[in-house]
Amino acid sequence: MRTGVWLIGARGSVAVTSIVGALALRAGLAEPTGCVTELPELRGPALPGLAELVFGGHDIVNTPLTKKADALAAAGVLPARIIAALQDELTQVDRDVRQLPTTGNQAEAVESIAADLAAFREKYRLDRVVVINVANTEPAPTSHPAHADLAALEAALVDGVEGSGEPVLPPSAGAAYAAFRAGCSYVDFTPSTGARLPALAELARRQRVPFSGHDGKTGETLIKAVLAPMFAVRNLRVRTWSGTNLLGGGDGETLAEPAANAAKTASKQRVLAETLGYQPQGNTTIEYVDDLGDFKTAWDLITFSGFLGTPMRMEFTWHGCDSALAAPLVLDLARIMAAAHAAGRSGPLPELAFFFKDPIDATDHTLAGQWQVLRDFVAGLHEAVA
Amino acid sequence: MRTGVWLIGARGSVAVTSIVGALALRAGLAEPTGCVTELPELRGPALPGLAELVFGGHDIVNTPLTKKADALAAAGVLPARIIAALQDELTQVDRDVRQLPTTGNQAEAVESIAADLAAFREKYRLDRVVVINVANTEPAPTSHPAHADLAALEAALVDGVEGSGEPVLPPSAGAAYAAFRAGCSYVDFTPSTGARLPALAELARRQRVPFSGHDGKTGETLIKAVLAPMFAVRNLRVRTWSGTNLLGGGDGETLAEPAANAAKTASKQRVLAETLGYQPQGNTTIEYVDDLGDFKTAWDLITFSGFLGTPMRMEFTWHGCDSALAAPLVLDLARIMAAAHAAGRSGPLPELAFFFKDPIDATDHTLAGQWQVLRDFVAGLHEAVA
Amino acid sequence: MRTGVWLIGARGSVAVTSIVGALALRAGLAEPTGCVTELPELRGPALPGLAELVFGGHDIVNTPLTKKADALAAAGVLPARIIAALQDELTQVDRDVRQLPTTGNQAEAVESIAADLAAFREKYRLDRVVVINVANTEPAPTSHPAHADLAALEAALVDGVEGSGEPVLPPSAGAAYAAFRAGCSYVDFTPSTGARLPALAELARRQRVPFSGHDGKTGETLIKAVLAPMFAVRNLRVRTWSGTNLLGGGDGETLAEPAANAAKTASKQRVLAETLGYQPQGNTTIEYVDDLGDFKTAWDLITFSGFLGTPMRMEFTWHGCDSALAAPLVLDLARIMAAAHAAGRSGPLPELAFFFKDPIDATDHTLAGQWQVLRDFVAGLHEAVA
Amino acid sequence: MRTGVWLIGARGSVAVTSIVGALALRAGLAEPTGCVTELPELRGPALPGLAELVFGGHDIVNTPLTKKADALAAAGVLPARIIAALQDELTQVDRDVRQLPTTGNQAEAVESIAADLAAFREKYRLDRVVVINVANTEPAPTSHPAHADLAALEAALVDGVEGSGEPVLPPSAGAAYAAFRAGCSYVDFTPSTGARLPALAELARRQRVPFSGHDGKTGETLIKAVLAPMFAVRNLRVRTWSGTNLLGGGDGETLAEPAANAAKTASKQRVLAETLGYQPQGNTTIEYVDDLGDFKTAWDLITFSGFLGTPMRMEFTWHGCDSALAAPLVLDLARIMAAAHAAGRSGPLPELAFFFKDPIDATDHTLAGQWQVLRDFVAGLHEAVA
Repeated sequence: MRTGVWLIGARGSVAVTSIVGALALRAGLAEPTGCVTELPELRGPALPGLAELVFGGHDIVNTPLTKKADALAAAGVLPARIIAALQDELTQVDRDVRQLPTTGNQAEAVESIAADLAAFREKYRLDRVVVINVANTEPAPTSHPAHADLAALEAALVDGVEGSGEPVLPPSAGAAYAAFRAGCSYVDFTPSTGARLPALAELARRQRVPFSGHDGKTGETLIKAVLAPMFAVRNLRVRTWSGTNLLGGGDGETLAEPAANAAKTASKQRVLAETLGYQPQGNTTIEYVDDLGDFKTAWDLITFSGFLGTPMRMEFTWHGCDSALAAPLVLDLARIMAAAHAAGRSGPLPELAFFFKDPIDATDHTLAGQWQVLRDFVAGLHEAVA
Repeated sequence: MRTGVWLIGARGSVAVTSIVGALALRAGLAEPTGCVTELPELRGPALPGLAELVFGGHDIVNTPLTKKADALAAAGVLPARIIAALQDELTQVDRDVRQLPTTGNQAEAVESIAADLAAFREKYRLDRVVVINVANTEPAPTSHPAHADLAALEAALVDGVEGSGEPVLPPSAGAAYAAFRAGCSYVDFTPSTGARLPALAELARRQRVPFSGHDGKTGETLIKAVLAPMFAVRNLRVRTWSGTNLLGGGDGETLAEPAANAAKTASKQRVLAETLGYQPQGNTTIEYVDDLGDFKTAWDLITFSGFLGTPMRMEFTWHGCDSALAAPLVLDLARIMAAAHAAGRSGPLPELAFFFKDPIDATDHTLAGQWQVLRDFVAGLHEAVA
Repeated sequence: MRTGVWLIGARGSVAVTSIVGALALRAGLAEPTGCVTELPELRGPALPGLAELVFGGHDIVNTPLTKKADALAAAGVLPARIIAALQDELTQVDRDVRQLPTTGNQAEAVESIAADLAAFREKYRLDRVVVINVANTEPAPTSHPAHADLAALEAALVDGVEGSGEPVLPPSAGAAYAAFRAGCSYVDFTPSTGARLPALAELARRQRVPFSGHDGKTGETLIKAVLAPMFAVRNLRVRTWSGTNLLGGGDGETLAEPAANAAKTASKQRVLAETLGYQPQGNTTIEYVDDLGDFKTAWDLITFSGFLGTPMRMEFTWHGCDSALAAPLVLDLARIMAAAHAAGRSGPLPELAFFFKDPIDATDHTLAGQWQVLRDFVAGLHEAVA
Repeated sequence: MRTGVWLIGARGSVAVTSIVGALALRAGLAEPTGCVTELPELRGPALPGLAELVFGGHDIVNTPLTKKADALAAAGVLPARIIAALQDELTQVDRDVRQLPTTGNQAEAVESIAADLAAFREKYRLDRVVVINVANTEPAPTSHPAHADLAALEAALVDGVEGSGEPVLPPSAGAAYAAFRAGCSYVDFTPSTGARLPALAELARRQRVPFSGHDGKTGETLIKAVLAPMFAVRNLRVRTWSGTNLLGGGDGETLAEPAANAAKTASKQRVLAETLGYQPQGNTTIEYVDDLGDFKTAWDLITFSGFLGTPMRMEFTWHGCDSALAAPLVLDLARIMAAAHAAGRSGPLPELAFFFKDPIDATDHTLAGQWQVLRDFVAGLHEAVA
C-alpha cells in the first residue's frame, strides 16, 4: 500500500526529523524508538510499511533538506552519521517539496495545492496521500459565517473577507480544504485551525476522507494525561497546577506570542478540568528562550491535599526535544490515517486522541483510556484486512 | 454490616491517622479526600459504611491514642481541631488496643492473638473482622521448610526453629496465622512477610478467608505506576531511573536499615522491569532524615531516548505525608476485604493490586490497568448483593 | 537607646510577623533565627537592644493585630503558642497603629503623618524613630518635574498634579517625605518609590536623617546574589537564567499585576547583568497562586557553558515564607538605621545593600561583597560609641 | 617561562580535555571559558602563557590521545571540529606520555618516575614542571608509621610494608614523592592521598617545591561553598542537607565503591559544618549510573528554619560535565603552581583553597573568601615579577 506523506512545513524541524527518521529506519540505521505503530500492540497488516511511505510537501522557505538536517545534527537532534548516509535520499525527497503559492485569491491557492497533491499521487502511483500540517502555529483566526457552511465557503474563497480581499481561511484550513478536494486525508499536528470548521468537516464527509488533530501531545500535556488521572483515581484533591514552558526553536518564538500562546495554554489546562472534574488554580506559561534550541524545559508545580486536608506537593521537570518526540508520531499518524482511509472511514477520527493535546471530539483525556481506544481502533483496521 | 478493623501497630502514625480519619468522616468533620471507596466508581451497597467500622488492635507500645494524635497534629499530619473534637471516641478505641504478647512459644502467642480477635468480634457483635498490618517493616526473614507446609508449620510453631527456640514465623506472619485461625481476613500494608507463605495461603483457603498485600503504594511507586506505562506506550526507551527517598518518622529509621531496605527497594524497581519489559539502569535508595518527620521527599531522575536516540530527561520531586496517603487506603481495604469475605472469596486477592507496591499474584503493574481490575471487582461485589 | 519602629502597612503579614517576633525574642520565647544583627559579626553597643524597640504604624485596614497573628498562625507562619502568650502585648501595640489619612490634599496628609510620628516619639520618649514601608507594592508612578526639586515639590504637594488634584507623590514617597519632615529615618522594604526621588534625598540631607532601600532581598534574588558571582569567578558563561515565581498572599496578587510586576522583575534580572558583566537570556515571571498562601515557590533554570562550550545546566526550587524571611530583616534594619542616625549619617546608605534586591547607589551585587561592606559599616558604628 | 605539565592519568577524560583545551586556546579555536587565570582579576606577568605549557604524563593504559579525544567528542564533551584540527599536535603530545612502571620495588618505581620527569624537563628545556594527579581515585590507604617520617619512608620504599612486599605508599603519594625528588611541584586534583603525609611535606620543603590539593571543586561542593555561607550570613538554620550524586564515566564507577566513596562524601559534608558552625542532618551519596557518561547529575535537598522556626526548603539539581569543569582548573593550577614555584614558595599552598573540595590547611570554606585569598596571592606573585 504505497502511501504519500505530504508535509505542510516540509522544511521545518519536525518534518525533516520525520523524513530522516523514516529513511533511517528503512535503511536499518536506527531503531524505531518513539514509533507507537512499531509496538506489538499496534503492528499488523493494515498499516503501510515504513518502506511504502513516500515523502513530499510544501513550505515557504527554500533551505535544502540536507542543510536543515545538518543544522539539526549540530543541535543534537539528529545523529550526524545518519545524515551523512542519507544525502542521496534526502536530495531526492527535496525535489518533491513545492513552494507554497502566495499570489492570487485563496480559491486559486487551494487549487494549486490540490493540483500538487494530485500530481504527487500520480507521479508515484500512490494508493493514497495523507496531508500533515507541521508548520508553525498560526494566530487564532477571526471567525466568519462561511466557516460553518460549505457553499458559502466556496464563494468566499474567491471573494475573500468582505471588502478586504483577506483570505477567508487561515492557511492551515486552506490546506485542509485542498487536501479534501484532492481526496487526501488530513492531520493537524499543530494547534492551528486545520480542519476544525463545520464547513470542512462537511467537505471531508462528502469526499469520504478522514481527518484528525489537534496539536501533537509531546511534552507537558503527555505527563498531565497520566498524572491527573492518578490524582483522580486516588481521590486526592489537586489545588494548584502551575506550568512553565521554556522553548527555543522556531515554534518557541511563535508560541510565546500572546495570540498563539492563548490557544495553546488554554488547551493545556483543559485536560486537568476534564480529568479531575474541577479546575485547579494555576496557569501554563510559555516563554521563548533562544538558547534552548530544539529542546524545551517544562517545570510544573502541583500542590494537593490528602486525607484530612494534609498539604503535599509534587514538582517535575521535563527536558525534551520536541522534534524527536513529534517525528515518530507523524509517521504513526501517516500509517494509521492511510489505513483508516483505506477502510472507508471519513470525517473526524476521535479514536486518535492518544496523539493529541486537544483531540477532536474525544471525551477521555486519560492516556491509558486513549491508548485502549487506539488499540481497539487499530485492531479493527487489521481485522478488516485479514 | 458491622466490620471490625484490627490494626497490628495500632498506636503508630498510619493506624492513628486511619482511626482519627474514620471518626472524623463519621462525625462530618472532614471530606473523604484520599478514600478511593468514596469515588462514584466504587461506591455501592456491598461495602460497609464508614459508620459501621469498629477499631481495635495490637501494639507493643502503650502511648495513648490521643497523645499520638496530638503528636501527629504538631507534625502537620492531623488538624488539631479534629483531634480536640474526638477525644472521647479516641479514648473509647484505646480500650480495644491490646498489648502484643511477648512471652511463651509462638503457638501460644498466636493463640492469644486469635483469642483477642474472637473476643473483639464477640464484644461488638461484628459480622466480620479485617486484620491489617501497619506495624514497622521487619527485616527479611530466614526461610524455613515449615513455611511451605501447613502441618509442619503447626508443629514448628510450638518447637521454634530447631535447637534455638527462635520463632519459626516473623511477627507479621504470626499475625496472619492468628487472623486466619480466628476466621478473619488479613491485609499486609507493609513489605513484611505477612501471609506470603504457601502454608499460610493453604490455611486461608481452608478457613475460607481472603488476604491481600503487600506494601501500600503511597508515593514514588505510585508515580512509577503511571509514568513507566507512559514511556512504554510511547515506545520511548528509558535508560536510567534513579530514585532517592528521604524519610523521617519511625518507619524511615527502620527502612534505612540495609536489611529492611533491600526488600523494599527491590520491589520499587521491579515495577519498572515489569512495565517496560527491560530493567533500566539505576537504583532506589532510602535514607533516614529525622527532621522530615512524617513527611518524605523523593527525587527521581529518568533519562530516556527518543527517535533516533535523542537523549532526554525527566525529574520529579514528591513531597508527601505517608500517613495521610496510607490512612484512607487502610479504610478502603477494610471495606473491600470485608465485602470480599462476605461474598465468599478466599485466598489471595490479586484484584487489589491497585493498592500495593508489590501486589500478590498480580501481573499488570500499570495503575490504569489495576484501576480497571479493581472497578470490575468491586462492581461484582455490589452486583452480588443487589 | 529607645527606638521607635513605625511600620507603614502595620497590619500586614511582614509587619505583624516583625512585631510578634520582636516581642517573642524579648520574652525569651524564640531564637533570633534570621536576625543578622544577632550574629557575632554584627552584635555590639551601637545597636539598640530588641527590648528597646517600640512599635507603631499606619495602615488602611483595621484588622486587630491579634486577629492577623491568628491568621498567620493558621497559615503556618507563626507558632500558635507564641501568639497565645503575647495577646496583651499585641493589644498594647494595636493602640499605636493609626488609620492612614485619606482625605484632604497631600500636604495635609503628610502633615498628619508627621504629626503622628512626633506624637509617637513624644509618648514613649523615644531617642529616634525609624519609619519602614512594608505596605503592598505600588504601581510604578508617573514622573513629575517636582520630583527633582524640593521647592517645587512643596508647592505641588498642596496643588496636586496640574489640573487633576491627583497627589504628586505616590503614597510611599509621601510617607518618606513625612518621615523626613518629622526628623525620622526611612527604609523602603518594598519596590515602591519611597525616598528614591532627588527632592526627597535633598530633604533627607537637609533634615540630617538617613534612608535606605529598596525591596527586601528575601528569596530568588538572594540566591542569585551568590550563584551569579560563583559563575563569574569560575569564568563560566551563563547563557540563560529564567525564573518563575509563584506567590500567594496579598502581595502576590499585587505583584502579578503587570504594572507592579514590571518594576520588580526588571530589578531581579539586573543583578545578573551587574554581576556577570552581560545579560543572559531569559526573564523572571511572577504569578499569583492563591493556594500558596504566605509561601512562595520559585523555580530557576540556568544554562551555562563550560570549557570549550560544553553545555551544562542547573535548576533550583526555593520554597520560602516571605514574611518569615522579611521580618527579621525589618528588625535588623530598624536597629542599624537608628544607630546610623545616632552616628550622624544622613542621606542614602548604600552600605545596607546586603538587605535589598535593588539597593540605592550600591555597586557590588555579590552577597559576599555586600556582607563585607555591612560588617565594616556596623563595626564603624560600634567603634564610634565605644 | 616554559612550563611542563605532567599529568598522572594522562589518557583519562580530565587530562585529555585539559590538553585539547590548551592546544585549542593556543590555536585560537576556543574561548577560555572556565579558566580562572584568564579573568582580569588574575591575569598578569607572573603566570606562564598558555603557549608556554608543554604536556606529558604517565598512564597505565595505552589508548592514543586522539582516540580518547574522539570518544569525548562522541560523548558531547569536546567539539569534533576542534579534535579534527588538532590531530598533529595531539599525536606529538602522545609521544610524551609514558607507561607507568609496574614492576620492581616502590623505590625503583619512584626513581623511574623521577627520571621521566627529569628527561621531560631536559628535552623541552623547561624552566619547571608541575605534576598534576588526575588519575582515578584510590581507596583510602592503610596508615603506616613511615608516612610521618621521611627517613623511615625512604627505607620503607625499598622494603615495602613489613613482611608483605606491599608498597608503603599509595600510587598518588609515590608520584608526589617522585615529583619532589625531581624538583617538581605537585597538585592532587583527586581525593587520593597525594602529598598529604608529613614525610612528603618534609620532603617538599627540603626540595623547596610547593604542592596543593585536594580534589577539584567542580560541582555540588562548589554550590555548597556559596549557598552555605548565604544561610550563615542570613542567620538561617539549616536543618537538613542531603545530596545525591549520580555519576557515569570511569571515576563514577570508582567513586561509587564504598572505600573511595567514604573519603569523598565525608569531605563533601565537612564544608557545611565548617561554614555553618554545626552539622546539619543528611548525607551525601554517590551512585554510579553508566548511562550518564561524562556528565553528572547532583540533587540536593536543603531544609531550613526561618524566623520563629518557620520551616522552608530549597532544592537544586546540577547537571554538569566534570571533565569540562575540571580541565580549565587544571590549566589554572599549572600556571599558578609554576609561578609560585618560581617565586620561591615551598610546602603546602593553602591560598589555593578556591580550587579544591578539601583544601590543605585552609580555614575559610566560603567561595567568596577563598576567591579573595586567591586574588591576593596571585597579585603578590605578579608584583614580585613586576
